[in-house]
Order: sequence, then C-alpha cells, then structure tokens
Amino acid sequence: MTPHVSRDELLRRLKALRDEASKSGCDLVYIANATSIFYFTNLYFIQTERPLALLVPLDSDPMIIAPSVEKGHIEYRNKAFGGVVNEVVYYFDYPGETSFVELAANVIASQLGAKCVMGDLQSGAQPLYGYRGVSLADVLKSRGLRWLDLGDFVYGLRLRKSDEELKLIEESGRWAARALEVALQVTRPGMWDWEVMLDASRQVLMEMNNFYKPYTPLKEPVGPVVGFRGQVGEFSAFPHALFSERPIREGDVLGVGSGPEIGGYYAELERTFVVGAPNNDIRRLFEYMLRLRKAAIEAAAPGVEVSKIDAAVREEAKRLGVTDLLRHHVGHGIGVEIHEPPYLDIGYRARLEPGMVFTIEPGIYVPGVGGFRHSDTFVVTREGVRQLTRFPEDLDELVVRP
Amino acid sequence: MTPHVSRDELLRRLKALRDEASKSGCDLVYIANATSIFYFTNLYFIQTERPLALLVPLDSDPMIIAPSVEKGHIEYRNKAFGGVVNEVVYYFDYPGETSFVELAANVIASQLGAKCVMGDLQSGAQPLYGYRGVSLADVLKSRGLRWLDLGDFVYGLRLRKSDEELKLIEESGRWAARALEVALQVTRPGMWDWEVMLDASRQVLMEMNNFYKPYTPLKEPVGPVVGFRGQVGEFSAFPHALFSERPIREGDVLGVGSGPEIGGYYAELERTFVVGAPNNDIRRLFEYMLRLRKAAIEAAAPGVEVSKIDAAVREEAKRLGVTDLLRHHVGHGIGVEIHEPPYLDIGYRARLEPGMVFTIEPGIYVPGVGGFRHSDTFVVTREGVRQLTRFPEDLDELVVRP
Repeated sequence: MTPHVSRDELLRRLKALRDEASKSGCDLVYIANATSIFYFTNLYFIQTERPLALLVPLDSDPMIIAPSVEKGHIEYRNKAFGGVVNEVVYYFDYPGETSFVELAANVIASQLGAKCVMGDLQSGAQPLYGYRGVSLADVLKSRGLRWLDLGDFVYGLRLRKSDEELKLIEESGRWAARALEVALQVTRPGMWDWEVMLDASRQVLMEMNNFYKPYTPLKEPVGPVVGFRGQVGEFSAFPHALFSERPIREGDVLGVGSGPEIGGYYAELERTFVVGAPNNDIRRLFEYMLRLRKAAIEAAAPGVEVSKIDAAVREEAKRLGVTDLLRHHVGHGIGVEIHEPPYLDIGYRARLEPGMVFTIEPGIYVPGVGGFRHSDTFVVTREGVRQLTRFPEDLDELVVRP
Repeated sequence: MTPHVSRDELLRRLKALRDEASKSGCDLVYIANATSIFYFTNLYFIQTERPLALLVPLDSDPMIIAPSVEKGHIEYRNKAFGGVVNEVVYYFDYPGETSFVELAANVIASQLGAKCVMGDLQSGAQPLYGYRGVSLADVLKSRGLRWLDLGDFVYGLRLRKSDEELKLIEESGRWAARALEVALQVTRPGMWDWEVMLDASRQVLMEMNNFYKPYTPLKEPVGPVVGFRGQVGEFSAFPHALFSERPIREGDVLGVGSGPEIGGYYAELERTFVVGAPNNDIRRLFEYMLRLRKAAIEAAAPGVEVSKIDAAVREEAKRLGVTDLLRHHVGHGIGVEIHEPPYLDIGYRARLEPGMVFTIEPGIYVPGVGGFRHSDTFVVTREGVRQLTRFPEDLDELVVRP
C-alpha cells in the first residue's frame, strides 16, 4: 500500500486544532472543507450534493457526519489509514427529510453538549456542490451556542511541511521523474497528446503498482500520471490550454507534467520537450526560460520576502526583453492541494520559512510558437532551498527523437 | 470538432439573465461560478487561486476579467465556440499588486458605469481555490452601487434542457454505451480496474477522435472515458469507493460507468458486470436491483412530485426486504455538471417538468459481497420519460467471460 502520514502526525494536527479552539473558550471544532477533513483524518470523499463534516470535540475522539453512501467505506479507510475517527453518524441522503445542518446542530448541541463551536464554514456545508439549506452558525446561535470562525487557521497549519509530508512529496517527485522519462520515450510525431498520456501512464502505473503492491492514492481513484493537456506546438502558448486540435508534429514544443498522488500529497514536475532538432528561435526562448528559472532559484532563501522571487524574475525578464511573454507568477505552494499558499507572486506578503514547499516555474509564451516552462518543487530549509524533483533541464536532453 | 450549443442558444440564455437583472432595476450581472460562466459563454477555465468573472451589462456584450494565464486562450476559444464575449480585461496574477475584486469594482463602476449589480457570489471570487480578499458586494456598496443576490437563478435556467442540450447529452450516452461495450470485452480476471479503464478508454477515444476529427471536450482536457473507481468485488459495496486493493477475480461483481463530455454536457451510464458464471446470491441481488429500477421508472412522469420516485423505490425495497441494503437516493440531475438539481430524493420539493434530465440508479450494497447498480439518464417529456442512454440490462448480457 502507498505510504501516508502516520496516526501520530494526525494526532499532532488535531491537537493544534483543539488548542486553537480552546484559546477562544470553544469546546468543539467543525470542519466542512473536504481537503481539511483529509488533512486531519487521512479520509477523503467524493464531493457531491451530500455534505460531510468532521467534528472535533476537545475531550473526545473526532466524529464524522456522513451520507450513507459512505457506510462501511469510512470504517474501512479509517482502519487502514490512521484510525483517528471513532464514531460516524450517518444520514440517508440529500436533501432528505431532515436537513443536514439541523442534524449537525443536534449532534453538536444535544449529543455532544457543546457550548461554543469554532468552524471553517458558517453555512455548515459547501454550496458549490449543490447543497442548499439554513446556515449552521444561525441554527447554533438560535439554540444559544456561540459560533466562531476558524478563518485560515488550517491553511496556516498546512503551510510548513513536516518531515513525513516532505517524504511523501519527494516520493511523488521520484515517480513524476520516471513518468517524464517514459513520456519522452513514448512520444512520436503523429501521436495525439492523450495517447502519450494513456500509454506512458499505463506503463508507470504498472511499475508503481508492482512497487507498492498495490498503488492506492488516498484522495482520488487511480488515474493517469502523465499530464499533457493539449500543450502541443502553438497550443502550448496557452499555459492553461485544455486540448490541441492536431497530433504532435516534428518541430513542436510540448509541455508535459507529472506529480502522482502519494498518500494525499503531490509534487509538481514539468518539462518543455521539443520534437526533433530545435531551431534557433526555440533554442533562444528555451535559454531565456532557463535564465528566468535561475533568477528565481537564486532569489529563494529562508527569511526572504516571497514577493522578491517574482520580482527577481520580472527584473530578469526585463533585462532579456521578454516581459511581454510572461503570463503568470513564479509558482505556487503545493502539498495536499496542487495549488495552495504560499503564492510566489509580487503581491504575496510573507517571508519564506523552513518547511514551506512550492513550485518554481517561470514561463514564457510566444503566440503561434509555443510555451517554455519547467516546473520543479522546492522546500525551504534552514540553510537555503532544497529541490524535491529532479529531471534533466537542458534542451538537448529533452528532445524527442523521431 | 465536438458539437456544442449554438451562439443563438447562448444569446437566449444571456437574455434570460439580463431580463432577470432588469426586473430588479439592475444594469449588470456578475457571474463568478465557473460552470455558470461556461453555461453562458461555452468558455471554461482551469480553477486555481486566480479568479475569473463574467460581466453581462444589459446593453452591451459580455466581458470577461481574467488572469493573463488565459491570454490568447480566451480569444481562441471564444472564436471557436460561439463568440459571445467581446472584451477581456486581463490582470497579471493573484494576489498581485491590486486585488482582483478592486479591479472588478473599477471595471463595473468606472468603465461600465453600472449602478446596480446582480451577482452570484457576494465575495466576488470563490475562496475554495485559495482566493482571499475583500468582498465585492462591500466594495460596490462603499462606492454607492447596489448589490443584489442572483440566488439560484442560474440553476433554475439549467433545470429544463433545450433540444440542443438533449442532443449533446444523448450523444454522450451513445459513446458511453460504446465505452461499456469495449470495457466488457477488455475485462479479464487478473487485471486491475485501472488497466481496464486505460485500455478501454484508449480504444474508445481513438474512435471518438476519428469520428469528430478531433474529439475536443470543452471543459476538461481529454481524459479516460471508462470509469471504474475501484468498484471490484467486495469494494463495489462502497458506492463511492476510490480504489480496490486487489485485481479482478472470477466471481467478482464490478461497477463500471461512462459518460464522456460532449460540448460540456454529460450523460451517465453505469452497469453492474459479473465475472464468470453468477452464483444464486448474485442472481437474486441483481434481480432485486432491477425491480427497484423498474419501480423508479414507472413512478416517473411529468407532473409527479420528484420525491415520489424515491418513495416508490423505498416501498419496493421494503417489500423485497432489502431496505438495509440501500445507500443513496434514486438519482440526480445531470447536464453541465454530473450532479445537479433535481435530486431524486424523498426530501426534494418540486414536480417533474418536461426538459428535466436526471439519472435513475437505485442500488443495493451488500457488505463483503458487492454493489448492484445500473444508472441510466432520462429526460421528462410531455408524455412521460424518455431514456437517453441504452445498454443491455439483464445479467446474462453483462457477464465477463474469462
């Protein structure tokens, strides 16, 4: 089975959460965000109209309120992945005869006898997946309970990664490197990007499965591990392209990435490939991208303002005359989500601290030609930054030989 | 290229939106929900920390405010897919030097001169993807503009599908049937569920690609079209399983589904397969599932209360003595999202109306044995309900022959 954070680490996280509530005189924490529930329990659930919440009383084990579609599944996964949830209250389905929020209020007030709840979502359930109903904060207030907002406390906890987390991210990075290696071998002119994705993914997933016996991501069903997303030739000039209208051709710039989920964590590794001998234009743009990347890596160090990294890249871009070709900031935090704080952006107000993990991926994008971007994942240490993903960076090692 | 709804249909939707705003004396509609933006423009964007909004003034063309990561991409897709967006205002990235919400307020108040804004998200940007900042409603109010909540108006529009929408859903259903046919042929004992997914998907995607020249989903990169999600043997007893810990074996109950995106729309087609000759227990449970399904289909007709369909299934389950094996309501609406209103649930207060599209998928789940569920997509017509997905339903046609 794939590794994941230990029960001890989950218990430390829960203690931090309880301490925060306790400081404000609250006796229960209410968590509705799916990623946060995962962060405290190693349990993840497919998001639909049916809400799900984690209750963390100060003096007893965490409890989950869940739709019966998760019956058996929660108990099974709780046992397999850390076992911090001791009780589950099931409701049949949404909208049901009693609203989820009324049920949650009953459990909190009557069953658990809480007087003050600190929570991450006033409404009690995420409306984005279809849930509509009364607000939990309102229902609790009407029953004489206090509601306090947890704000971004969980994001704060997630910001500095532990050694256990770093190991998972680094392991994701190792498989990502293997995936790009296979993608480079598999790619041929005439193929569609999704053929490369499916063929390379099949091969690497088999290797991962044989290694872990079996490979079991915690948050997602097993899916492709090579991402291509239509970054083919002129379409790669759109950093968030979704498809290309044509197969891969000789001369194309390709954007390929990977970062398989390991125990709920991700690294990000992306490379710019070129199909066949690169022309001089491509060589020059590729070289500019490498220089921007170097500027970013050199600017990153513990204690440095995060915004300075993005500023350093903009300065280098100005020097090279490619400011107009930038399309996004230098990078983003990564961990249990693929994008999370800190954002390596000129407007992000914080300093780099040991344990922060983020991508460095300045890119330049030339309409009609293509996009040039490598992405690697780094962690801030006491001494500097450490690169968690490794793969060749030079153009000559990233050529698809037709 | 894959079909999609026409420019005329987008214009009708925009008119309905403007009419709604106009009724309240507002002169601009603000849409931040990604699926809603798609619904009005045929444009979809990868969700990250970077917000994106659609502005629909009463008397001029829709405008988009977007991060520069979408530069060129929006113009390209707008031209390809309906062309209702006439102007794009780009900001560099998040958090940036000026907040997105301040920028949006400037465009609304100064550039477009609006006095009253009707919107779908008070905060102006979805916090779920990392955005943090001042609320748009507050900023507008501080500048003397009115803010009115659009509420669930867009969900209401989406509830009754047009002929164009039905065609796309039905087309998704046809490819889904082909995908299950291939999955049935490809599956062999000893394979992992994800091998079936990748192998069957590769074959069907190639057929789709040859048919559409090329296949281009509008909302997602091209990805697997066969869903398996660990619904293997005893793991299929978890309706929302994410993985199984073992390969497929003779005697297993398997849950397989498909519903590829066509022009942003989905059908849902799921079948219960059995590997090798089914034993009597499996035959009996399969038969019960078919009876629940029949009860649901017979209860569905225009004018009927939605809750009655779920009630009919519960009644039939009671008669068969399988109430304890139910884990979820009968089905969910489907269209531009895989789950959307109406929910076929005992607590859902509305009547079936012509144009509503939903799945019928009552299931029974036996711990240690497996899950039994077929899902098909139906539309309500004036006369009754019409099935939009077709695939064999009887056990003997769903046996994987090792």
